[in-house]
Amino acid sequence: MADVWQECMDFGVEVVKQAGQVIREALQKDISVMEKSSPVDLVTETDQRVEQLIISSIKEKFPTHSFIGEESVAAGAPSVLTDHPTWIIDPIDGTTNFVHRFPFVSVSVGFTVKKEIEFGIVYSCVEDKMYTARRGCGAFCNGEPIRVSSQQDISQSLVLTEMGFKENPEHFKTMLGNVHAILTIPVHGIRCPGSAAVNMCLVACGSADAYYHMGIHCWDMAGGAVIVSEAGGVIVDISGGPFDLMSRRLIVASSRKIAERIVKEINQFEVGRDDAG
Amino acid sequence: MADVWQECMDFGVEVVKQAGQVIREALQKDISVMEKSSPVDLVTETDQRVEQLIISSIKEKFPTHSFIGEESVAAGAPSVLTDHPTWIIDPIDGTTNFVHRFPFVSVSVGFTVKKEIEFGIVYSCVEDKMYTARRGCGAFCNGEPIRVSSQQDISQSLVLTEMGFKENPEHFKTMLGNVHAILTIPVHGIRCPGSAAVNMCLVACGSADAYYHMGIHCWDMAGGAVIVSEAGGVIVDISGGPFDLMSRRLIVASSRKIAERIVKEINQFEVGRDDAG
Repeated sequence: MADVWQECMDFGVEVVKQAGQVIREALQKDISVMEKSSPVDLVTETDQRVEQLIISSIKEKFPTHSFIGEESVAAGAPSVLTDHPTWIIDPIDGTTNFVHRFPFVSVSVGFTVKKEIEFGIVYSCVEDKMYTARRGCGAFCNGEPIRVSSQQDISQSLVLTEMGFKENPEHFKTMLGNVHAILTIPVHGIRCPGSAAVNMCLVACGSADAYYHMGIHCWDMAGGAVIVSEAGGVIVDISGGPFDLMSRRLIVASSRKIAERIVKEINQFEVGRDDAG
Repeated sequence: MADVWQECMDFGVEVVKQAGQVIREALQKDISVMEKSSPVDLVTETDQRVEQLIISSIKEKFPTHSFIGEESVAAGAPSVLTDHPTWIIDPIDGTTNFVHRFPFVSVSVGFTVKKEIEFGIVYSCVEDKMYTARRGCGAFCNGEPIRVSSQQDISQSLVLTEMGFKENPEHFKTMLGNVHAILTIPVHGIRCPGSAAVNMCLVACGSADAYYHMGIHCWDMAGGAVIVSEAGGVIVDISGGPFDLMSRRLIVASSRKIAERIVKEINQFEVGRDDAG
């Protein structure tokens, strides 16, 4: 089946390039922002338009494939991973960044077969960086091979995470407590770029040594997960166990040692699952 | 004297361009990192080399001018602002980013006469964005005029700050408490890019709506301060009073309303002054 998936990947890269072009053009224009449920949870016309563009292009080429897309799920589509070839799509990862024209905005696409990620594509549109990886074939940025840093020592590490308001005061406290714990190690620094997919690619290319997050979704992680693995990185659940695409949480790191230290330092809070129904 | 300062500015832009080129080349190579006093406080050979390059070039052209440079001060030079024409230089703003090749790394230069900033130059090297502003003449990025966002409502704002380990537990607690307070408003999000000068420019060009920080230095702020003002932004002390270049603290915002709300939300901690002697 190898060649079949390669054909899918090549097609996916072309579609993602087009999607990125639409996003870049939209960033030049005024944006009419619609709100989902809170000021923190923004969705734009472009977000929906880009997801439609990606899904309809792929459907035409591969009519039997399945899809999990952020906007489709928001509109009521199921978010359950099956054995079927499935495209998992975040049309704009970093929607808040997009609205503000903050420069980390990406299109993220992961492709799974039998629940395993076969390839990932993350296009950081403003930076014009196309990250790609196919299982077993290495990771690339604009066609050049990329590699995680050789860092084994967390005290020499740059760590990525995201901080947002949490309705649940315990979750909010835990999130800030985790930042406190990581800074106290101490590390070189914490950065919050605002796009999960870009964060994973920053670890993949060695510009950061770790990234942890609770509360994200499978469409934020699917593209970046295989890019990090193929770049030599480690990807685990926040508990230290195996990474679970539908679990809404992850740690990625340049080395197992750093991932394990983060597991030890941070506390979990309950975030539910993407496939909880 | 107008034309004299314009000549200085034009010369400064050329020198900063060269400095940025040195930094970009260094980012391609392996970096031998020396440590100042702690893992968080890094300095590189490039940092010192770039400051030397900038200062020696300017000294040759303007032999009577004064200088305050991050690396010179670290080596024992005084950090006192006089009425004399003074170049305030951060050769690499975002040293930790530089070491990790995290993409926000800048050269920052501010020029003061009679303690007032006449012009500012911030070059974000990886993004290849040259921000410039002369007092009374507007702010520019790569020659195009820039403008802060029109945002008046903090709950619709993207806020920048930085989080680092603090030896003093009270300072550390206050820093994280401030993040808690800002997120609780709530805002659209908090981002931590890791370069003070770039943060100011991100507000200046409307990619973020506010930035606050305690514990930075005059060389982090001098270039960006006039860029933000000339882009229509507000720059005040963390107390809400007038901005003081030597005070090691600031709030910048797209509007006075947002700056005042940040003043209200955050608590101060003692950071000393750059000119404390």
